[in-house]
Amino acid sequence: MSAKKMDINRRLDKLKRNEERAKRLTLLSQLSQLLNSTLDPKEIQRGAMEAATRLMKAEVGSLLLVHEEKRHLYFEVALGEREEDLKTISLRFGEGIAGWVAQHGKPLIMNSPEKDRRFFKGVDEKTEFKTRNIICVPVRVKEKTIGVLEAINKKGKGGFNKEDLSLLISLADQVAIALDNSRLYQELEEMFFQTAKSLADAIEKRDPHTGGHTQRVTLYSQAIAKYLPLTSLEKKWVKITSVLHDIGKIGIEDDILKKPKPLSPGEFEIIKRHSNMGAEIIEHIRQLREIIPGVKYHHEQVDGKGYPDGLRGKDIPILAKIVAVADTYDAMTTDRPYRKAMDKKIAIEELKRCSGTQLDGEVVEAFIHAYQNGEIELLSE
Amino acid sequence: MSAKKMDINRRLDKLKRNEERAKRLTLLSQLSQLLNSTLDPKEIQRGAMEAATRLMKAEVGSLLLVHEEKRHLYFEVALGEREEDLKTISLRFGEGIAGWVAQHGKPLIMNSPEKDRRFFKGVDEKTEFKTRNIICVPVRVKEKTIGVLEAINKKGKGGFNKEDLSLLISLADQVAIALDNSRLYQELEEMFFQTAKSLADAIEKRDPHTGGHTQRVTLYSQAIAKYLPLTSLEKKWVKITSVLHDIGKIGIEDDILKKPKPLSPGEFEIIKRHSNMGAEIIEHIRQLREIIPGVKYHHEQVDGKGYPDGLRGKDIPILAKIVAVADTYDAMTTDRPYRKAMDKKIAIEELKRCSGTQLDGEVVEAFIHAYQNGEIELLSE
Repeated sequence: MSAKKMDINRRLDKLKRNEERAKRLTLLSQLSQLLNSTLDPKEIQRGAMEAATRLMKAEVGSLLLVHEEKRHLYFEVALGEREEDLKTISLRFGEGIAGWVAQHGKPLIMNSPEKDRRFFKGVDEKTEFKTRNIICVPVRVKEKTIGVLEAINKKGKGGFNKEDLSLLISLADQVAIALDNSRLYQELEEMFFQTAKSLADAIEKRDPHTGGHTQRVTLYSQAIAKYLPLTSLEKKWVKITSVLHDIGKIGIEDDILKKPKPLSPGEFEIIKRHSNMGAEIIEHIRQLREIIPGVKYHHEQVDGKGYPDGLRGKDIPILAKIVAVADTYDAMTTDRPYRKAMDKKIAIEELKRCSGTQLDGEVVEAFIHAYQNGEIELLSE
Repeated sequence: MSAKKMDINRRLDKLKRNEERAKRLTLLSQLSQLLNSTLDPKEIQRGAMEAATRLMKAEVGSLLLVHEEKRHLYFEVALGEREEDLKTISLRFGEGIAGWVAQHGKPLIMNSPEKDRRFFKGVDEKTEFKTRNIICVPVRVKEKTIGVLEAINKKGKGGFNKEDLSLLISLADQVAIALDNSRLYQELEEMFFQTAKSLADAIEKRDPHTGGHTQRVTLYSQAIAKYLPLTSLEKKWVKITSVLHDIGKIGIEDDILKKPKPLSPGEFEIIKRHSNMGAEIIEHIRQLREIIPGVKYHHEQVDGKGYPDGLRGKDIPILAKIVAVADTYDAMTTDRPYRKAMDKKIAIEELKRCSGTQLDGEVVEAFIHAYQNGEIELLSE
């Protein structure tokens, strides 16, 4: 071949590589968009793993996260047939390739892992998976390694190369950003819940009869919600509604709220104002308008004999129906100054008896499912 | 030239274009990372505009956002010398190229804008800017156009092309995702503040003497914070501390809290417990540990004569010192059952008199700056 021809061939080779590179960069851009379009950490983790698999043209991709206190890495998710096995595996810092990458904060390509002493055979043995080659990069947020992204077994001939490494590093940066945004969001959400809970607890503490009531109702409501066809957003509303369901009691005077004897009918009328008062407190919070009906109507009954508006059956919002069942069960199973707590089994029978009159049948059923699966028993111990 | 040579030249041309494309895709990936590494909407907007300018090799890039109610677009930010001018301009839906893109949700390249009737000369006239060519794409979140990203005047010869369009569309998708994540975060933060505020208001309402106190103290504290060398995060803590500073009052019984006459020394000792009680309520909220000292010590005095711990001068945290000044000013300038409100000017003199003994000098100075700039006067009208 002439020198000129060789030169042209080299150039054409480069042409092909660049075309391929542009394609992969476009894919990287698409995958980054997917990663950042959610604030749900599980979705980001799954997305990261799928992205590593596709971008690296590998058989398997995984994301290992750092558990700081224990100084180990764990497989949060892993694609492929052996998914269940991988989930149970964790690596110590410095152990295996991922452990080495996490410890040193440096990327690594290994095309003959069996020859390198850093390679940890534990995972392969446990999963009967054969690692031919592996590429592994740290996932770093503000100089801190929070995880490791890796791809195993490049499809086709040859192993991983520099080009792969540069792409996987870019992907890991995007994963880091998406995970960090998600973490900030989760932290803020947790701050919201904890603050609402602490203030609701403080408000509840004025009433000496009901120590821990709000907390138990919140746990029971969440247990019920698991057995109802609700979206994850609706489940979040269930949690917020139950945390705030009794905040209207802040408006009830000490002499009625703290009365150690049963209330007179007139005093009971005053206590009954708490559901409307609670709704009024949250009515100016635009972001919480979804839960106003739940707070306002948690003392309605399906037969129309509840308060404040005497709503019936399907006119009562589901959030209110859920809190009503949780609230009723807790009232029955805790001591009052003028009566002892009811036995749990009898309380369950009582819920069944009230199903369809006082309480919503479907919600009682969900509660009983949760109870039978030990989710209520556990909480009230 | 022979057919073969032409073919090779074409291929080499393609090689060059692909190399260029890979470079720009790498730049896109870097810019996307920058956009997504913040949840601050202003930073994202500025980043989007700079990214459009760089990626398009243009003289100017801008991001226009949709104002849904008014059905117009406004320049939120714009780079370049004429920045100030552009900020004042808004376009109606359908007006000009950006207005057309917002209305139709479709991208547009215009390399001879003077010939197209969609081109709106208002902006150019106002800014004395000459638009030679323009590329403009919608910024869409879940099928909804929330803005328009554009670049004006491609550097060098020629106008914008298909390749530019494909890159700008990718960038706009990343901008949309970053803005949407930021919006979700802001909404959640607002929900937190509104909920804390509503519950604090409800707690405050038990005390008939102090209607609106928490709200005023929060506004005064924020006004003070503007005149102190605080970070934006510290300013956020100032806001949260003032919202929650009196929540401990939930633990004080009605007969003391609602007493219409001045309190006896013994009763006052009970009232004084509210700052410790407030700190106890928030002490289990991990995300709020920064504000515990602010709540606990907002009744300390720099001369050591305050409560609960009799801290002195620099041992009192700045958050507590800020709330103390806001709190003192509000107490003086509002009616109490047993005395009338003090004239504002006299209250200011009183703050000055207490500066260095009861109150921190630097904080009083910041308050007076805010007062002189009309920021306190306005709030208390």
